[in-house]
Amino acid sequence: MKKINIGLLGCGTVGTGVAKILIENKQLLESRVGASLILKNVADIDIKKDRGVVFDKGVLVTDAYKVVDDPEIDIIVEMIGGEGIAKELILKTISNKKQIVTANKALLAAHGNLIFKAAYTQGVDLGFEASVGGCMPVIKSIRESLVGDRITSMSGILNGTCNYILSKSTNEGIAFKDALAEAQANGFAEADPTLDVEGIDTAHKLAILTSLAYGMEINFNDIFIEGISKITPIDIEFADQFGFKIKLLAISKNRKQGVEARVHPVMIPADNPLSNVNGSLNAITISGEAVGNIMLYGFGAGMMPTASAVVGDIVDIARNLLSGATQRIPLQSCQTENIKKIPVMPIDDISTNYYFRFSVVDSPGVLSKISGILGNHGISIKSVHQKGRKSTGSVPIVILTHLAKEFDVKTALSEIESLDIVRDKPVLIRVEENNYSD
Amino acid sequence: MKKINIGLLGCGTVGTGVAKILIENKQLLESRVGASLILKNVADIDIKKDRGVVFDKGVLVTDAYKVVDDPEIDIIVEMIGGEGIAKELILKTISNKKQIVTANKALLAAHGNLIFKAAYTQGVDLGFEASVGGCMPVIKSIRESLVGDRITSMSGILNGTCNYILSKSTNEGIAFKDALAEAQANGFAEADPTLDVEGIDTAHKLAILTSLAYGMEINFNDIFIEGISKITPIDIEFADQFGFKIKLLAISKNRKQGVEARVHPVMIPADNPLSNVNGSLNAITISGEAVGNIMLYGFGAGMMPTASAVVGDIVDIARNLLSGATQRIPLQSCQTENIKKIPVMPIDDISTNYYFRFSVVDSPGVLSKISGILGNHGISIKSVHQKGRKSTGSVPIVILTHLAKEFDVKTALSEIESLDIVRDKPVLIRVEENNYSD
Repeated sequence: MKKINIGLLGCGTVGTGVAKILIENKQLLESRVGASLILKNVADIDIKKDRGVVFDKGVLVTDAYKVVDDPEIDIIVEMIGGEGIAKELILKTISNKKQIVTANKALLAAHGNLIFKAAYTQGVDLGFEASVGGCMPVIKSIRESLVGDRITSMSGILNGTCNYILSKSTNEGIAFKDALAEAQANGFAEADPTLDVEGIDTAHKLAILTSLAYGMEINFNDIFIEGISKITPIDIEFADQFGFKIKLLAISKNRKQGVEARVHPVMIPADNPLSNVNGSLNAITISGEAVGNIMLYGFGAGMMPTASAVVGDIVDIARNLLSGATQRIPLQSCQTENIKKIPVMPIDDISTNYYFRFSVVDSPGVLSKISGILGNHGISIKSVHQKGRKSTGSVPIVILTHLAKEFDVKTALSEIESLDIVRDKPVLIRVEENNYSD
Repeated sequence: MKKINIGLLGCGTVGTGVAKILIENKQLLESRVGASLILKNVADIDIKKDRGVVFDKGVLVTDAYKVVDDPEIDIIVEMIGGEGIAKELILKTISNKKQIVTANKALLAAHGNLIFKAAYTQGVDLGFEASVGGCMPVIKSIRESLVGDRITSMSGILNGTCNYILSKSTNEGIAFKDALAEAQANGFAEADPTLDVEGIDTAHKLAILTSLAYGMEINFNDIFIEGISKITPIDIEFADQFGFKIKLLAISKNRKQGVEARVHPVMIPADNPLSNVNGSLNAITISGEAVGNIMLYGFGAGMMPTASAVVGDIVDIARNLLSGATQRIPLQSCQTENIKKIPVMPIDDISTNYYFRFSVVDSPGVLSKISGILGNHGISIKSVHQKGRKSTGSVPIVILTHLAKEFDVKTALSEIESLDIVRDKPVLIRVEENNYSD
């Protein structure tokens, strides 16, 4: 039986999961692939730690560069993460003309253009299914299943931590910081949760998907990002009254003027399938001219689900090696010479529906002033909701709008904020009434 | 630019969709594939019909055999359907060593073993993604994305007609025959709906998926099939009271004793994601040891969604041709020599939870008699629900059970049916409390 030698760099949670599958499912993999996938070396700084996997003698090593330079190794699996040494090792692997698999979304979002170009030039394959949505086969779906279709938009819940926190807040009416503390206690959030709760991790994934879906280069900094830390129980409650749920979505739309690519909290109808994705689960809806909508749903993180996606990539590349078909599918979904430069629309230029909540002094004429300013900026009101009168302090006025342009909304809100009847900064949450349509 | 010539057999709804995509998205496909996919011939008995697609002169022909024998054609797309001429043409294509794409689930369910063997022997590829779940990439997910994982079970809504009818009945409280009539009027059901509503179409798809998921040959006749024609509004209402929805599911489980493969109406918890799949949509949950559960969701039928899946297969095979990698992936997910013979468990041997509804004479001691018989057969009752007393006629007694064996259930129900206090045949609906666990 033919052999494919694999070198694994980094044996943390997902790396260990990959090793487990390669070792424990060895026979199963052989029966499917028709070749033996051999984990020749695993490089990690800590080779003494008990990982619950039995490695043959000599498999665990400390020097990742030696693994990358080993002429007997066919596929390198980079599970180190981050943009430092991982980037160096990936580029070294590519220049050694070895195939590579990675789940490193931060690296691909920031340096994907460089890395893809290097892989293309050297004629090697680069698998990165596990970089987005864990075990959901979203990259394979875009690059292969939907190859004949024109993708028009995507909406995804791509960060389990944020979805866990928002689900907690929604179901138990607790504030962001309490839900975050609970997520941390349960291992669903990092000690420093910034990357997750501020939407950056979601944006990394959106950058990768947007580039693949529309066959374009993307500059990560062009993506508009807003996290969930300012979402309060009162807004979740209002959303519920209007038949909405609040989710942190990665949204990308292919429009005439350019591509929308944005990450922010969104109110979506409760009967949108994404509304029912709870806890740390991920899901994505991909809309295409022919398919209508497809949705994928599953664990977006975790040791074994992510490892399963990594092994899927390893096998894909092994099958290419076995049949002499490396680069059978272009890395970025379309032929390198056809990759386009499409502008990402500035957030000010996008149009959507909005939810505003103003804290105002409870006095006559307040609504007239606010609605007057909105009207002056061409923002059309769909409904207004005023809570009962209070003798002292401020009361909330909630407004839902028809389609409006973000620039107009910002201008109007800053005028309204400066009114002396308005207490606190107005709250703005974007509403996607029907994220299936364009 | 290299050229791949395609011959399309059958230009009905989906065939026309395939032609549309190949013609209208020609440039898009070239930019992704790096080769030109040329629709050289379309064979159909009716070449005069206006299909809304403009074919070049000479493309439309009546003789399918001539297309299959054309040495210039690389890939044959069989869109005729059924088990007659389609089978002949597919076998001829294979013996001509041409690649083939089909969506013909009835044919593959009945003659898959023969056809796969022929293709394997002749060294040709056979794409059949569109045979199950329309645009949902379920076959690709099983054969490729989950290649490193051991699939433990699958539960799917795989027939849009049944799901449309059940959704209608559930949401509007109308009876099966009225919902069916409406489905027919709206084009969601055929004039002869037997294949759909009796679960046969679903079972065709289940046969294909079961064979791929567990790497086994399957005999279609071993699949237990029960349709939805006996589902009544009263059972849908009871289901709702218990927090369940009724769906026609394709269920397949990989157990120690063999494989379960069955199609029948099931009560599932309302918060199971499959419960929220309404109308003509399809969805499938695949559970694996590593991935946990993934769910795919989308249009399981229809011109363009199905055509999109067909084109995905055409491109996959074209890419194999372009890189000389035909049969890169084994057709049946594992290497032919590793395909196993696993017994399909007779329905009598499976264990699940049950819902029973008995129509009984309203007199004291009835429940004691019924529960006594259930107890004698080792069937443990979870809850009993008796509707208010009626002065005349029969009243329903509803019983939910713990896990019980189908054989015991059948025996007990036939004893209960013979009691003179029991009117009508008892109603039995299987309950899957948690179709994620095994």
